[in-house]
Amino acid sequence: MDKKMSMISRRKLLTTTPLLAAGAMLTAGLPGKLVAATATANSTVQPGEKTLVTYFQVAMQKRWPINKKLVQAKPYAKYFQKDLVVPVEMVEALEKGPLPKEWVMPPTVDGLKNVMQTFEQAPVSGYALVEEGPLAYAQSRHVFPGVTAKMFEWWFCWHPLESERYMLWFPYAHIHNSVKDPKRLADTSLTYGERLYGNPNHITEYIGNMFLDGVISFDDPSAFGVDKALIEKEGFTFNASGIISPWDAPDTPLVLMIHLARDTPAGLEMINRYWIGAHDSFDRFKKFPGGASKSKALTRKMGLDKAALENFAYEMALHDMTEFTCLGKFLADIYKENNPNS
Amino acid sequence: MDKKMSMISRRKLLTTTPLLAAGAMLTAGLPGKLVAATATANSTVQPGEKTLVTYFQVAMQKRWPINKKLVQAKPYAKYFQKDLVVPVEMVEALEKGPLPKEWVMPPTVDGLKNVMQTFEQAPVSGYALVEEGPLAYAQSRHVFPGVTAKMFEWWFCWHPLESERYMLWFPYAHIHNSVKDPKRLADTSLTYGERLYGNPNHITEYIGNMFLDGVISFDDPSAFGVDKALIEKEGFTFNASGIISPWDAPDTPLVLMIHLARDTPAGLEMINRYWIGAHDSFDRFKKFPGGASKSKALTRKMGLDKAALENFAYEMALHDMTEFTCLGKFLADIYKENNPNS
Repeated sequence: MDKKMSMISRRKLLTTTPLLAAGAMLTAGLPGKLVAATATANSTVQPGEKTLVTYFQVAMQKRWPINKKLVQAKPYAKYFQKDLVVPVEMVEALEKGPLPKEWVMPPTVDGLKNVMQTFEQAPVSGYALVEEGPLAYAQSRHVFPGVTAKMFEWWFCWHPLESERYMLWFPYAHIHNSVKDPKRLADTSLTYGERLYGNPNHITEYIGNMFLDGVISFDDPSAFGVDKALIEKEGFTFNASGIISPWDAPDTPLVLMIHLARDTPAGLEMINRYWIGAHDSFDRFKKFPGGASKSKALTRKMGLDKAALENFAYEMALHDMTEFTCLGKFLADIYKENNPNS
Repeated sequence: MDKKMSMISRRKLLTTTPLLAAGAMLTAGLPGKLVAATATANSTVQPGEKTLVTYFQVAMQKRWPINKKLVQAKPYAKYFQKDLVVPVEMVEALEKGPLPKEWVMPPTVDGLKNVMQTFEQAPVSGYALVEEGPLAYAQSRHVFPGVTAKMFEWWFCWHPLESERYMLWFPYAHIHNSVKDPKRLADTSLTYGERLYGNPNHITEYIGNMFLDGVISFDDPSAFGVDKALIEKEGFTFNASGIISPWDAPDTPLVLMIHLARDTPAGLEMINRYWIGAHDSFDRFKKFPGGASKSKALTRKMGLDKAALENFAYEMALHDMTEFTCLGKFLADIYKENNPNS
């Protein structure tokens, strides 16, 4: 959302819903975090309040006991959870339905710039169809108390070495993860980027009713068009952004995924964005030449029409909300257990 | 579940999970209600504890604001809810996955007899595929504090007269209800059965991702094969059982639905059962001659294979859990408001 659009939407509020507009005017001069805090204070939801997840697809319900059995002999079995919880604030944001147009970002370099400039004002969770693509779009902003960027870097170099570790992250939905070069991923003499980037993860998991058999190619955010100066300005130090391709179509960029995070006094703050489907701008990724036409052909072949993509966007937002809240709950503990001297 | 099966399953428990078996042995001599209470006391869930629903299909999210607008001018608009809650105990029962075989009842006269003999021991909520049909099966047992059978009878004669009243019952999913003979339904000089039975309701609603455009033919439970003596023995005084047919196939019995309830000191206790799909025994309904072959042909035409039916069973269980918990929250109040002298 550029500044002009933001002004227009505020003016619109002013003419139709005086109460909300007054709130917007009062908070217009405050930095993003305070705006969010004010919004929370006005509702009955406590900041950080969690609630039980009440829905898992049948395939996920059937997967949980299988994962449970696989994990139980592992030294980290105690981190495998049954009752998953999610932030009430995020649930209520999603139950409002698809995001208003001004918050639906395209996966372009300009769209990513917009994300970096407006993420503090964006709804804490959301999904929508991007018509010009078409693409599914999902977004979230998490805060993980007690968690640091360093812990997340450890997690991304540690968990892909055993599928059972991946299962901890989303006990109902995650099935498999393996990495192309496990030695490199485990080599602590290398930097985080040297270990993870260009070292694809082969994942299988459920996202809603869809079974995803995919490859994640992690890379520096600038490889996807995120402005380095904005990353530095906002103080983001953690990155796990990547392109996901189907296992049987490894040259096709089906998902552009942004995971960026920064340490704050409240804990690690993470912003996640997903674009799933086809887009003209998918031609810009150096490692995926012809990405625009390839993603279009694949999306059509998969039967991902606009209705299916909108539904998938919702499922992606739920999946992100559920898995990151789950991981955020135990990451500090499992990190300390595995890094006693840090 | 007959007595023999029950014994076998308990013996099985004994050899594999001693802890559970000890619980089963301790409670084996107690009446059903005490068993349920004991089970609850052993977990961390408080009896009657509710939790926020965290998932509504996209179509439902989009329906809510439309319903909200339609209801807002009505005198009962205050009963229209946004944040729906459901019993934790039911959510946890569903998240265990499909029901164990001994709890999956067929829609036969024998199956209904079993239901009437074992409902107090049955899981509080559940779903499964019935292979020999095939059929989707869903079940629930609700307790509504402060609610009586009389209030439910009033509700079933009152709400079908305006679609907006039906929307109160499930604000995200209910769209339309109209009755063939509204005058008869409203005639307080007649008995409940004279008003509702043989006076079909035309309903449209979402059940999961499925849009149902159907007709409910309510009738006395004995018309579906429920044993009258067992109904009397258990003290059930409320009934809203019926057959649901698609609007464009009114002679085809697609759903057998049992709603029976009795007044208890804790509030109205209701048992609900749904069988959706095709079954040989569907030939027995006098008002639906040839029901077996008709239901088979329709189920095939609708593409309801076993995977789709199992998924639908889960959605039906969720739908029942959500709508009845929602109604139970406001029924006593709306009844008193509309029946000030009762």
